[in-house]
Amino acid sequence: MRVVAPLLLSSAIGAVACVGLLLPSLNVVSVSALSFASPPSSSSSSLNSRRIGFGAISSSVSPTVTMKGAADSSDATATATATATTDYDVVRVDLEGGRDYPIYIGAGFDDEEAGTMLRSHIKGKKVLLVTNDRIEGWYLDKYKKMFEGGDDGLEVETVVLPDGEAKKTMDVLMLILDAALTLKLDRKVTFVALGGGVIGDMVGFAASIYQRGVNFVQIPTTVMAMVDSSVGGKTAVNHPLAKNMIGRFHQPECVFVDIDTLSTLPDREMQSGIAEVIKYGLIRDADFFRWQVDNMDKMIRERDPAALRYAIKRSCENKAEVVKADELEAGVRATLNLGHTFGHAIENGSGYGVYLHGEAVAIGTAMAASMSARMGWIEPSLVKEVYDILHLANLPTELPLDSPMTAETFKEAMSIDKKVADGKLRLILLKGELGNCVFTGDFDEGAMSDTIDEYVAECQGKSKA
Amino acid sequence: MRVVAPLLLSSAIGAVACVGLLLPSLNVVSVSALSFASPPSSSSSSLNSRRIGFGAISSSVSPTVTMKGAADSSDATATATATATTDYDVVRVDLEGGRDYPIYIGAGFDDEEAGTMLRSHIKGKKVLLVTNDRIEGWYLDKYKKMFEGGDDGLEVETVVLPDGEAKKTMDVLMLILDAALTLKLDRKVTFVALGGGVIGDMVGFAASIYQRGVNFVQIPTTVMAMVDSSVGGKTAVNHPLAKNMIGRFHQPECVFVDIDTLSTLPDREMQSGIAEVIKYGLIRDADFFRWQVDNMDKMIRERDPAALRYAIKRSCENKAEVVKADELEAGVRATLNLGHTFGHAIENGSGYGVYLHGEAVAIGTAMAASMSARMGWIEPSLVKEVYDILHLANLPTELPLDSPMTAETFKEAMSIDKKVADGKLRLILLKGELGNCVFTGDFDEGAMSDTIDEYVAECQGKSKA
Repeated sequence: MRVVAPLLLSSAIGAVACVGLLLPSLNVVSVSALSFASPPSSSSSSLNSRRIGFGAISSSVSPTVTMKGAADSSDATATATATATTDYDVVRVDLEGGRDYPIYIGAGFDDEEAGTMLRSHIKGKKVLLVTNDRIEGWYLDKYKKMFEGGDDGLEVETVVLPDGEAKKTMDVLMLILDAALTLKLDRKVTFVALGGGVIGDMVGFAASIYQRGVNFVQIPTTVMAMVDSSVGGKTAVNHPLAKNMIGRFHQPECVFVDIDTLSTLPDREMQSGIAEVIKYGLIRDADFFRWQVDNMDKMIRERDPAALRYAIKRSCENKAEVVKADELEAGVRATLNLGHTFGHAIENGSGYGVYLHGEAVAIGTAMAASMSARMGWIEPSLVKEVYDILHLANLPTELPLDSPMTAETFKEAMSIDKKVADGKLRLILLKGELGNCVFTGDFDEGAMSDTIDEYVAECQGKSKA
Repeated sequence: MRVVAPLLLSSAIGAVACVGLLLPSLNVVSVSALSFASPPSSSSSSLNSRRIGFGAISSSVSPTVTMKGAADSSDATATATATATTDYDVVRVDLEGGRDYPIYIGAGFDDEEAGTMLRSHIKGKKVLLVTNDRIEGWYLDKYKKMFEGGDDGLEVETVVLPDGEAKKTMDVLMLILDAALTLKLDRKVTFVALGGGVIGDMVGFAASIYQRGVNFVQIPTTVMAMVDSSVGGKTAVNHPLAKNMIGRFHQPECVFVDIDTLSTLPDREMQSGIAEVIKYGLIRDADFFRWQVDNMDKMIRERDPAALRYAIKRSCENKAEVVKADELEAGVRATLNLGHTFGHAIENGSGYGVYLHGEAVAIGTAMAASMSARMGWIEPSLVKEVYDILHLANLPTELPLDSPMTAETFKEAMSIDKKVADGKLRLILLKGELGNCVFTGDFDEGAMSDTIDEYVAECQGKSKA
């Protein structure tokens, strides 16, 4: 059952008060029009009905309070009283023990303003800013200056790691710790992850074990990281035998999402991230799924900032709600892994880095849907919807000609999945109408084998052709 | 200020009820005489006054409830109604969130009984029992059988690591994780550390990062591990630049101390562990310190089980109280590191493994006392008491002739200490009467330099002689 959350609509002054609670040192008023406050381009809603559409989509999220810097455009005085320039959303990840934190989501941030926001989450005097050799040229200096730009004299050290999933190893992670110790950074340091999911996972994990745990901040620069990996505190490195097997739960101080960084994201990376957006629709948010169908082109081809921002915000709201309910994945949080058990097997069996994470998850999602239908848990029409949306996002739904995957490779890798308990594999499968899933070990193993065989056979059949 | 805790004296039936709360599946009644219930051989107390002596010594510990399996010998029916054979103490480490756990301390355990106790803390069906190549021959089979001996069909896998502080590295730790993944152990596995402080620290850390955290159990086999490192959840590996720099706080499910394992402990290891026992007396428990002076020979030369058991129990009570007050070392827990900043510098600067941890801590403790007196914080007579008790324990109080330590080496290593905050080193120093200390960055740096210079000069003077 879902509870309808009241939509928070504030005047410009109200917005100051709300944001002020989060950032006492920051005087922020948003000035944008309504365009970002509602699903920006749902083909089923006219301009006038947008707020209703937003309310309806928001209705599935109750514990997550979304505070908007954006003033209601019906308040004609908003722009007149504004003192700052950026419009952004704040999604809070609500955790026990005073560990709740904000996800800031916006575009067109003023560097000075964004610097103030970020610095308000740094408790010590030093920052270790970690990125990879692809992001370095684009954004490292920019963020270094933002951290250094205050009156508090923050010192910023930087580390640049090699890029890619194949580098998400303990050996590469040790480079971060080597640097931190060489620089004599003490327990009050804050590690900052500037990059995609690989950087976020590694820097978060490094922060969790440096001197038994230091603070960290996530600045995701890919859709994948913005909608999923930077939120919720999962950190890890891969092991040659299985993905993400070594890590910790370690929550960040804040997540800062600047949509503008997506302008430099390659198409493949963009599409990969959308696989996780699709996931939220499938497992728990049918309205969001339908919105995605209508807006996929806007997101991945036009890179429309409003559409992307809405998709990211809605994804973060979904994730924050799930993380709040089950931070350490004792149950419902596992549903965020739809398609991931098959997907991780593909990533591991193909060699880390051959697939982007979301590409492997897309194939895994198709497999999970196919298996669910094979057991009669969902209608064939829903499987078609899954395939269709993945294709809309230009994501793969089957293994390529040259895939090294065999039924054995799948089963071997899946036998070491983190969701195995007392020797029994558990999967996230779709069940019922769109937007519903189950996390269960009680499934037909024959259906799983048949699904794997079908996917492997298709690929092998093609490679013979 | 210290609060006097009421001494818990139970009849045999009362003891069943108490222990039963901890171990529902276990019917334990202790049958020993009073000898272990009080300081077993304090030269200042006669047999008749022992209970008073015990009460006085216990008085410094309030939140830690110590439950004794041992029945009060004044209850003449105790032995008659006993159904099991072992007498042991239970010290509870009282933590928030249902994470409190028992430390069992005893001798002469029946394997079947001990196996039942240990298995009651295993939640899944598999155990990964990790030890080193020195302990392996003595105790690995014994404990493997104890875990396997129940009706619950526990499966036990084993890993044997190379022994020694020099092997406390991330590379060696990865051998544990490699084994766990090769064996396809899932999240319900319990890692068991069988060995000294190095094994405990590494297995605990491995458990904390395997699949983002699995349960673990500590079975310490050295005095060092029994009185200090196995209790309180600190886990770590060393880094070439500094000791224990990479790790987590991760609490065990229980700690099981069988005093009998000390029968195979080399003298040097025995003495090393006593350095941490002395620490508790110096920082917070003057009565315990005086008891140690009177009983040092019994402990380290006679290896009197009763004396050792009392020292271990009293140490665990002190540690449990401190850990309860400050689990994550925001303040008072740091006082447990008396002598450790100097000591870690000696361990790192001399090459890991040259000194046993307690040997380096002993020199560090002498230095901390000397520096405290140099600043006028304690009387010279207390410095003499510190030196005297360390010598009684056959522990070093100065650097040896061939020490590579220089003032530079000390200062370099100490500059990366975990207690450095915002660039300022903080030390644990003695202040006032015996049993009092401070954790502070507000000390005379000249006194620290002079102390280091004195220790280094003595050593260099001797090496020239």
